[in-house]
Amino acid sequence: MAINDSRNLGKSGLRVSNLGFGTWVTFGGQITDEVAEELLTLAYDNGINFFDTAEVYSAGKHSDCTKKSKFNDLAEVTLGKILKKKNWRRSSYIISTKLFWGGKAETEKGLSRKHIVEGIRGSLDRLQLEYVDVVFANKTDAHTPMEEIVRAFTHIINQGWALYWGTSRWSPMEIMEAYSVARQFNLIPPIAEQAEYHLFQREKVEVQMPELFQKIGIGTITWSPLACGILSGKYEDGVPIYSRAACKGYCWLKDKILCEEGRRQQAKLREVALIADKIGCSIAQLAIAWCLRSENVHCVLIGASTVEQLYENIQALQTNVNPSDKGS
Amino acid sequence: MAINDSRNLGKSGLRVSNLGFGTWVTFGGQITDEVAEELLTLAYDNGINFFDTAEVYSAGKHSDCTKKSKFNDLAEVTLGKILKKKNWRRSSYIISTKLFWGGKAETEKGLSRKHIVEGIRGSLDRLQLEYVDVVFANKTDAHTPMEEIVRAFTHIINQGWALYWGTSRWSPMEIMEAYSVARQFNLIPPIAEQAEYHLFQREKVEVQMPELFQKIGIGTITWSPLACGILSGKYEDGVPIYSRAACKGYCWLKDKILCEEGRRQQAKLREVALIADKIGCSIAQLAIAWCLRSENVHCVLIGASTVEQLYENIQALQTNVNPSDKGS
Amino acid sequence: MAINDSRNLGKSGLRVSNLGFGTWVTFGGQITDEVAEELLTLAYDNGINFFDTAEVYSAGKHSDCTKKSKFNDLAEVTLGKILKKKNWRRSSYIISTKLFWGGKAETEKGLSRKHIVEGIRGSLDRLQLEYVDVVFANKTDAHTPMEEIVRAFTHIINQGWALYWGTSRWSPMEIMEAYSVARQFNLIPPIAEQAEYHLFQREKVEVQMPELFQKIGIGTITWSPLACGILSGKYEDGVPIYSRAACKGYCWLKDKILCEEGRRQQAKLREVALIADKIGCSIAQLAIAWCLRSENVHCVLIGASTVEQLYENIQALQTNVNPSDKGS
Amino acid sequence: MAINDSRNLGKSGLRVSNLGFGTWVTFGGQITDEVAEELLTLAYDNGINFFDTAEVYSAGKHSDCTKKSKFNDLAEVTLGKILKKKNWRRSSYIISTKLFWGGKAETEKGLSRKHIVEGIRGSLDRLQLEYVDVVFANKTDAHTPMEEIVRAFTHIINQGWALYWGTSRWSPMEIMEAYSVARQFNLIPPIAEQAEYHLFQREKVEVQMPELFQKIGIGTITWSPLACGILSGKYEDGVPIYSRAACKGYCWLKDKILCEEGRRQQAKLREVALIADKIGCSIAQLAIAWCLRSENVHCVLIGASTVEQLYENIQALQTNVNPSDKGS
Repeated sequence: MAINDSRNLGKSGLRVSNLGFGTWVTFGGQITDEVAEELLTLAYDNGINFFDTAEVYSAGKHSDCTKKSKFNDLAEVTLGKILKKKNWRRSSYIISTKLFWGGKAETEKGLSRKHIVEGIRGSLDRLQLEYVDVVFANKTDAHTPMEEIVRAFTHIINQGWALYWGTSRWSPMEIMEAYSVARQFNLIPPIAEQAEYHLFQREKVEVQMPELFQKIGIGTITWSPLACGILSGKYEDGVPIYSRAACKGYCWLKDKILCEEGRRQQAKLREVALIADKIGCSIAQLAIAWCLRSENVHCVLIGASTVEQLYENIQALQTNVNPSDKGS
Repeated sequence: MAINDSRNLGKSGLRVSNLGFGTWVTFGGQITDEVAEELLTLAYDNGINFFDTAEVYSAGKHSDCTKKSKFNDLAEVTLGKILKKKNWRRSSYIISTKLFWGGKAETEKGLSRKHIVEGIRGSLDRLQLEYVDVVFANKTDAHTPMEEIVRAFTHIINQGWALYWGTSRWSPMEIMEAYSVARQFNLIPPIAEQAEYHLFQREKVEVQMPELFQKIGIGTITWSPLACGILSGKYEDGVPIYSRAACKGYCWLKDKILCEEGRRQQAKLREVALIADKIGCSIAQLAIAWCLRSENVHCVLIGASTVEQLYENIQALQTNVNPSDKGS
Repeated sequence: MAINDSRNLGKSGLRVSNLGFGTWVTFGGQITDEVAEELLTLAYDNGINFFDTAEVYSAGKHSDCTKKSKFNDLAEVTLGKILKKKNWRRSSYIISTKLFWGGKAETEKGLSRKHIVEGIRGSLDRLQLEYVDVVFANKTDAHTPMEEIVRAFTHIINQGWALYWGTSRWSPMEIMEAYSVARQFNLIPPIAEQAEYHLFQREKVEVQMPELFQKIGIGTITWSPLACGILSGKYEDGVPIYSRAACKGYCWLKDKILCEEGRRQQAKLREVALIADKIGCSIAQLAIAWCLRSENVHCVLIGASTVEQLYENIQALQTNVNPSDKGS
Repeated sequence: MAINDSRNLGKSGLRVSNLGFGTWVTFGGQITDEVAEELLTLAYDNGINFFDTAEVYSAGKHSDCTKKSKFNDLAEVTLGKILKKKNWRRSSYIISTKLFWGGKAETEKGLSRKHIVEGIRGSLDRLQLEYVDVVFANKTDAHTPMEEIVRAFTHIINQGWALYWGTSRWSPMEIMEAYSVARQFNLIPPIAEQAEYHLFQREKVEVQMPELFQKIGIGTITWSPLACGILSGKYEDGVPIYSRAACKGYCWLKDKILCEEGRRQQAKLREVALIADKIGCSIAQLAIAWCLRSENVHCVLIGASTVEQLYENIQALQTNVNPSDKGS
């Protein structure tokens, strides 16, 4: 399996690389612009064509992880600068962003038409792009009617500000509702869902998403293949001082790791380590390759804060987890 | 709360009594026609207006519970005979049946247009009725496209063979898909779902059905308020020889009771018994009243094999589980 | 103006006589079948082609006006018998009935699909007819969704049980909602509204109905031209013992007449009497002719319990209330 | 209750502050631009996010209230200048304007497609904005078919010149008709109605609008909480020379105050004054808080010509009119 062994994103015609690169946590936050550029270049040069970001990520709570003042840009700003500098052909890569949390004002959050329209325009400004390829609704919004949401994303596409739209962390029923409204009012349905997927979180991607794919063509992009780093093995002996879980805004992660369920996961992890050892790869590589084994997963988003880490993760594609799965 | 304290079935205009009477297991199977008539009369006289049955129930595997040859009618046949004899005004009660398993041939199962059309006609013949009020799809059918299913039920309603249609044991996503197809092709959407609901099975009815009610008006009819008899307390000390769980076709029930999860339930049951004792009602009465406490449950189906048992269950409505819940 | 000076009912193609004959209060209730036949014959012979009735009227509360046991048929039954006996060409007259109160059971009232379907079938049985010309929803039903109501009336028309449907005592917004749903789902919209209209109740018919006619073609049938008899002048000196207002079920009418508002109306009535005197007609004739002066009123329903009374009312058409109004 | 205790505008996803600020009478007319800026800043800083204006207000007849030549700008021009100067984030506030009276020419009035398109473009020019959030039809137009009106507003939204559209002073039937046409032709329905609402004008907002909200999600924005100043108490002893009612263009207001109905209102006002006194607030504060007590009112528009007056009105939110109402 190679990265440029592309797959269609759901039943859409959009061809995505197996691995996608998520910029939301690190870009503009934990790393310098120079490292960001190195990472993006490495990814692009290795055949990754899908770069995912989101509005305002790492601006608010995430940014207080470090006190260094130079890391204060938004992920979209950093990504936009690099894209401009590198000057790759626009048609050779895919940019997606995600909308929901756009600012502090009441009208700057959620999935109202106002925020969807203003949100995408803000993102395009920061990215210095004319359009993104896919725009995702980053969460459902119980206070906005589905008709308004689907109409707004259709409007964005009709305006030329995005080519496709998708969902992130929506329930299968909500995705089906969006599809229903699109069909009822002759609007544009979503093409893919971004879902958490790793050894400890399997049901949605393995059971529900294939059904949505069969019925209405929804593709699956997965994120957090390392379970927020747990599957990297770095929390095996607790929470190291310099890890993300020790950062100010990440108490929830620390709690997750140290709780009882977390301990059970560490136990499982030790078994995974044995298998990785046998295959001759790192735990992280095994975890990523494991996500990719299913043809229902169209793209696995990975992140990285160092070039070494990214390189290691890309190598995951060499890992032959379960060749007999491929045919099914 | 009284039985004739009717509720609308979902957002439809159909007014159903709080309690409904399910005839599928016992009628034509475990009990004589005389007892069946006594039960139906008691139910009707006490204000129950909803009688639920299904094609072919107790014909196949279920009937081998007893070797006595006289109990070999189908539940629908028995129900039809009694309705004819009693001659109550047709408009004063509601008959529902459920389609899926109509016979042994390949073409006699599932939700193809062929089986839906032939199935309802068979049911009407056996019931000696011109129409049922609600016809339910008794399961989903992964091998029939949703468009065919919704078109077939719409056809049944347009032919006058049923007034409404609903689903039974469908996932929220499947129900939303049916609604979506109905809207897309201007067909008739379903009005209600029949779902299992009792102390040990709560999530679907308490979390997912209210959302479906809000969004697309789907009502909820629940069945198995006593968890297949577990909540009647009769399996407290194992499986008695003469109970249903000891019947030949009910190994699954026996297994369920004796497994580890079953043991945990028996433990919980002992706590329930204490509460019932305090309130001064039987465990079964408490279990039924508990189902009815939520306004999202529009009808609770109960069954009975003796007049005493049915009478006791109807009395459940006198039980005041949680009065403060009612007003909200 | 003559009775057979027909008008179209709204923008429909149905041609109705100016005057219609309402059978709901008197038939099967206050008068014998012989008188009923005389009345109907007089009406038909004088060119009235519209006969309006309703399910179960005069069965319940209305029938206790008299203790004589011979008046116990339903209005529809009496009307049906006479139509059968007279054997007029079915195509030469229009029969309408109204649905809402069909029986005591929860499922026998309102505008659920169940009651609309069962109600019209009951009416057709009682009328001994294959179809009525127009079926009216006798009231709105806040507990049934408009989609269900419009679908059910469309079904009735598709089954051939009625040719048109209309509304009675609906607000303009509700009528517009019905129209909206019909257009949205490609169903059949209503053609006319039955509304109370007389000197003391003018706004709906004079202001709101013309707008509905212009916009969506809804016709207007009016009832109670004599304001429940107040405009007949018979309550001028209080409530006579043998009048309807003295009947057991009509306390509300008695109260209405004797209240302060009622007294004000009696004062106005005295002015009307002067005008009637000048024109040379009775107050009742003036009141009926006054209703007909507007071209927005397509049919005025009148009732009668004696041949003399009906004859007098029919003569109202000779009354020239306000010729200059005609051109507008 | 605080202003930033936002509500959704109807069933739309747009979050509006409880209080909105109406600029139409005073801006560009009665007050200087400096005062206008102070007022807008005070409103924004206190959490008001909804600013309502209208084309041509205070240009025509309204402006002759004063002979001073410097007050000759249009409200939209003044509002636009201030927004430009203040440079608040566009996504943090909501601008609405209203179309109907655009100029003296025949083609510059009403709701023809021509005027709707040319009207909104004129408004955007004057406001120096790319889009408004909500555009309202300021009145119904009996001479333009509803299909043309709804198509034109849908066009405006598809062009990106407005995010939503609404109505102002439309009857419930007209709103339902707009919705009907939107559904029939798959156009965009309106989201809210602006209606007069105060102690002396209650029916539409309290009775009719909740029904429209339930059925088709229409929100309610109210204006004139002080009944054109009557509820401020300033006309208690007649019409003072310097009040608005004494202005040349406001004869109608003067008449209204001095007529019989006006006198009755003054009597009621004295009772209101007693209550306000007991609560410890001004009559105006009580009147505004009273409007906000209902959850069916999504935004109450207030106006002001001095900073003190606006500040006092904003304080109305501290007034606890009927705390038990809030929870229900």
